[in-house]
Amino acid sequence: MAERERIRITEVGPRDGLQNEARAVSTDVKVAFIDLLSASGVAEIEVSSFVSSRWVPQLGDASEVFARIQRRKGVTYSALVPNEQGLDAAMALASPPDKIAVFTAASETFSRKNTNATIAQTLERFAPVIRRSRDARKPVRAYISCAVACPYEGPTDPQNVRSVAGKLLDLGVDEIDLGDTIGVAAPSDIDLLYEGLAGLLKPGQTTLHLHDTRGTALTCAYRAFELGVRSFDSSCVGLGGCPYAPGASGNVATEDVVYMLEGMGVRTGVDLDRLVDCARLASTLVGHEVPSKYYRAAIGARSRASSAG
Amino acid sequence: MAERERIRITEVGPRDGLQNEARAVSTDVKVAFIDLLSASGVAEIEVSSFVSSRWVPQLGDASEVFARIQRRKGVTYSALVPNEQGLDAAMALASPPDKIAVFTAASETFSRKNTNATIAQTLERFAPVIRRSRDARKPVRAYISCAVACPYEGPTDPQNVRSVAGKLLDLGVDEIDLGDTIGVAAPSDIDLLYEGLAGLLKPGQTTLHLHDTRGTALTCAYRAFELGVRSFDSSCVGLGGCPYAPGASGNVATEDVVYMLEGMGVRTGVDLDRLVDCARLASTLVGHEVPSKYYRAAIGARSRASSAG
Repeated sequence: MAERERIRITEVGPRDGLQNEARAVSTDVKVAFIDLLSASGVAEIEVSSFVSSRWVPQLGDASEVFARIQRRKGVTYSALVPNEQGLDAAMALASPPDKIAVFTAASETFSRKNTNATIAQTLERFAPVIRRSRDARKPVRAYISCAVACPYEGPTDPQNVRSVAGKLLDLGVDEIDLGDTIGVAAPSDIDLLYEGLAGLLKPGQTTLHLHDTRGTALTCAYRAFELGVRSFDSSCVGLGGCPYAPGASGNVATEDVVYMLEGMGVRTGVDLDRLVDCARLASTLVGHEVPSKYYRAAIGARSRASSAG
Repeated sequence: MAERERIRITEVGPRDGLQNEARAVSTDVKVAFIDLLSASGVAEIEVSSFVSSRWVPQLGDASEVFARIQRRKGVTYSALVPNEQGLDAAMALASPPDKIAVFTAASETFSRKNTNATIAQTLERFAPVIRRSRDARKPVRAYISCAVACPYEGPTDPQNVRSVAGKLLDLGVDEIDLGDTIGVAAPSDIDLLYEGLAGLLKPGQTTLHLHDTRGTALTCAYRAFELGVRSFDSSCVGLGGCPYAPGASGNVATEDVVYMLEGMGVRTGVDLDRLVDCARLASTLVGHEVPSKYYRAAIGARSRASSAG
């Protein structure tokens, strides 16, 4: 398989995962977790969010985490930045993020409830963030939440996604990250999503961000792969939960994505054994059983091997 | 979508699921579970196994369960039968099973360890079971375990599956049920499996029996659907575990399969709300968190609705 077929895995457990976990995680442990992830071979790690700690207390230590992690060559370390104040904080670091992520939504109701702003207002707010990031030669990823459905409005019209994506591209973002925020997608929804973006975005210019609330995330990733998508977000052990479905799973688990793709002969660059080391740490953080199935099978195999040995 | 596109769901929770659960389940509860499943709209239910209760104590009440369940028109009630004694017991019932299932493997080592017989010996043992079932106008399903990989031998050569399937067809079975017994398949393995059967078996003549040990089962079902397979085994809430991977998931969860397919506009005949009622009962039986993600999301939604109401 040609090098261009290599998959880009962005580990979002330290940000999207922990943000949605109830139990507080110390800065020390976050740093250890991210350093282990760096060694696993993931292409990119979303380290934290420079959002007010009033809104997301779990990520209030973004600057300290960035200051203390060991940067590994070849790994991109990104941060979510909601506004110019967040960008100021991120860029003031001795080692600022390699990449800046901003977020809006394809649903007006979700945008208003989640960020207290219309979609148009979020784009206005981002314009200087995107411009300054580009001036600093930082690539910009833009999340579009509710790309498949909204918890308030129901199914999202793919033309709404197209409209928002077009405006983000006009503002100069480098990458559009399409989020199935509430984890409802069937694989056919992935077809509709990318059909709606035809001619505007090539699959190669997008990342797919799937939540596994109803068990379909890995299948949707597979369908997207069939359609040409080569960049996926995932979280170690499936950290994250879903604020709109208590008790539900979080992001699609990195181990499961990597296991499936490598099993298909597709290269991810990720070492599954090292990923299991990350997962072992992550599974101790959350105080509940973790969703990753590959991880549980691997831990079962390791414990058998050690009791046999 | 044409009627022929309708999917056949065989619920194997009462047999394959419970067989691999440690906690004993009473006959009363099994009967209640199967009666609820009958009302959910699944096409077929594998009720129990007429195997010696010395080997599978959990299913030692097969005759009582068959005697007490309420048969619902349109639902096929099947039983696993390992040998002629098992068939004698099944056929002696006032209401015998509608369908008989036999099992062999595509791996010699697995066959010997699991049934103390070579593959050839299992086929000899089944010949009279199959003949007598057909004489009694009972269709016969034959399982081929380890159709993708064996816990002892590693990956299975698809030509071994083809060879065993050919012999089973010669013996007169109506349906070949291909099992990824240890739950290792990537979707590309499903391609290899059906390529190996090309010209011998049409996808429509087979059922796929997936275990979700490493999280890939639903994706493999989706890939099989793309390849034309229209019959799947699954278990309510993903009952079952895996004896070769302690702590791992069981069969692919019926709720997740149905949610995905219905989301694609494919008819399964199954009512998801009624299935959640089955799942609620099943989840109380096993003494551990259940793997089905759709179920957890649905229960979360129901509890929110009731606390809001």
